[in-house]
Amino acid sequence: MVLNPGSTVGILGGGQLGRMLALAAARLGLKSHIFCPPGDNPGAHVCDAITLAEYDDAAACMAFAARVDVVTYEFENVPVTCVERMAERVPVRPGIDALRIAQDRLTEKNFLRDLGAAIAPFAAVDDAAGLAQAVKQIGLPAILKTRRLGYDGRGQALLRSASDLTGAWTATGGAAAILEGFVDFEREISVIAARGLDGAVACYDPPENLHRNGILDVSRAPAAISSDLANAAKALAVRIAQALDYVGVIGVEMFILRDGSLAVNEFAPRVHNSGHWTLDACAVSQFEQHIRAICGWPLGDPSRHSDAEMRNLIGDDVAQWAVHARQAGTCLHLYGKDAPRPGRKMGHVTRLLPMGHTQ
Amino acid sequence: MVLNPGSTVGILGGGQLGRMLALAAARLGLKSHIFCPPGDNPGAHVCDAITLAEYDDAAACMAFAARVDVVTYEFENVPVTCVERMAERVPVRPGIDALRIAQDRLTEKNFLRDLGAAIAPFAAVDDAAGLAQAVKQIGLPAILKTRRLGYDGRGQALLRSASDLTGAWTATGGAAAILEGFVDFEREISVIAARGLDGAVACYDPPENLHRNGILDVSRAPAAISSDLANAAKALAVRIAQALDYVGVIGVEMFILRDGSLAVNEFAPRVHNSGHWTLDACAVSQFEQHIRAICGWPLGDPSRHSDAEMRNLIGDDVAQWAVHARQAGTCLHLYGKDAPRPGRKMGHVTRLLPMGHTQ
Repeated sequence: MVLNPGSTVGILGGGQLGRMLALAAARLGLKSHIFCPPGDNPGAHVCDAITLAEYDDAAACMAFAARVDVVTYEFENVPVTCVERMAERVPVRPGIDALRIAQDRLTEKNFLRDLGAAIAPFAAVDDAAGLAQAVKQIGLPAILKTRRLGYDGRGQALLRSASDLTGAWTATGGAAAILEGFVDFEREISVIAARGLDGAVACYDPPENLHRNGILDVSRAPAAISSDLANAAKALAVRIAQALDYVGVIGVEMFILRDGSLAVNEFAPRVHNSGHWTLDACAVSQFEQHIRAICGWPLGDPSRHSDAEMRNLIGDDVAQWAVHARQAGTCLHLYGKDAPRPGRKMGHVTRLLPMGHTQ
Repeated sequence: MVLNPGSTVGILGGGQLGRMLALAAARLGLKSHIFCPPGDNPGAHVCDAITLAEYDDAAACMAFAARVDVVTYEFENVPVTCVERMAERVPVRPGIDALRIAQDRLTEKNFLRDLGAAIAPFAAVDDAAGLAQAVKQIGLPAILKTRRLGYDGRGQALLRSASDLTGAWTATGGAAAILEGFVDFEREISVIAARGLDGAVACYDPPENLHRNGILDVSRAPAAISSDLANAAKALAVRIAQALDYVGVIGVEMFILRDGSLAVNEFAPRVHNSGHWTLDACAVSQFEQHIRAICGWPLGDPSRHSDAEMRNLIGDDVAQWAVHARQAGTCLHLYGKDAPRPGRKMGHVTRLLPMGHTQ
């Protein structure tokens, strides 16, 4: 089903990703209706309509579904029951399967392993005894990650020696988890891939990603890797999207190991922070690409007119907005959030560079 | 006064220009509040708040002014009284003078002449007898233009011979007008200039503009003119902005005559259709530039990362949206208007081209 211009896109989540999706929808002549719990919702300032309700409010979910032409989500922790309710009435894209798999690190790892993708060794951890057992299996160093609700490094603890076990188990809240072998990678990249309703696929060239305190700091596009490796990374992302019968944009984080091979870290069934540079360096951004896909429109050309370096403005970084605003060739994006708390993504800046500047 | 991110920009007018201003404000973390009469207002779908009222509704004007931190306008036919009321409470940028001058072609021509800008010969026409007198003074061919409320070729009539006088006077409604000598130009360009609150100025490279049925059809950036001529055009636009003590983006339409000299056609005290390509070919678009200026922010870098060709989608042109969506390197913009009437601007597409592709 192809939506006509003038249709309404329903977006679950009112954060910066929902906001940038709404702005992309507007550019295409589409209306957006955001559904999110009350709070500081930057998406609320740019949408045509907003429903402020909890995701488990069945009546609100049904009323929302009746007013929109397609539903999508800006984050992978939307309760599956919420999406299932809406799917009875209106298409939900990407599908529920992608959401279910992405919500649970164990399910996600099993899915990736079954697909034949290279991944770090992992083991399920259900309790403190299980953790000791997993350490025996995986070895140290390793990372304990809660199966659910982790993001930006939350719900994770690094284990270097046997004495770290108890502390790590406590730090992650004693929740069901996985233990993941520590990957001594050379660099981290991501593929922002899109799959259309007709099965067409399109990938942006992978950026290299640098983190600070577990949060994405900088994405440089393109990553300084060979075109063979870039193509292999894209093919892997496409394989994941196809296996999920995915519709929309998916962000697949990958490691490049010391031997030059690729390993998948995780995927996000949504637009991705490491794709924000596409807003300014491509004719069609990841946000527009996602909207096109979920509306049944043709995918856009993912090619780049400029190289780019995207830097997140986290917490008090945002106080420097006027400095960034003065820089030539720099695109400033502020999310309209009310208070800059530590670790909170307040905006980003993208510096445009001539194509091939690194060669 | 510099507005902080999170402030509210008041925009008079809910058309596509107001819409694109609101989208640019959102990108900078600013809220927008649109004021416009009830109707099909595409800006309404993307703003944080909307006041639906007539411009002569004094109470609505005052209530609006109390809720915003700065007021700007998307079109030059906002009643001056409306803006004067708001200016008692909140800064209005660009100023009231620019609006007053731009609203009356006679005042505008006198202003440009007094500034020493080359312009077509003109004469005031108050009645049918005055038209005959003006024709004697200016000669034929000439164009009769109503002093007020003309746009996209409306309120204009071309006079080729003496027998056209009565018809032209009737066609323009018998309103106060000017008669303008016909300019046999080689090409038409425009300068999208910006002036900041601190007096800083920035100009985009002038595009060449092609019209169809009196409405802008295509803008090509940059115009294929010498850099000397481009610089002279920019300097002229800056002189106009300075004389108006202007704050914001101004669009100055110019002719390049057969002898290679410049003549000013008219200016628009607002963002301009011939600057839409800046959305996709520059780090900072004309819309963002205008928002920056009126908020007291530093002006952005007006340089271009790509050459560009912008084409308006007028009336039924918009039915071809899916064809445009498939074109590589093409940026599609739809305005979200409900019905494609003849002559109505429904969207535009910008094709990006490598820099210097015409050389």
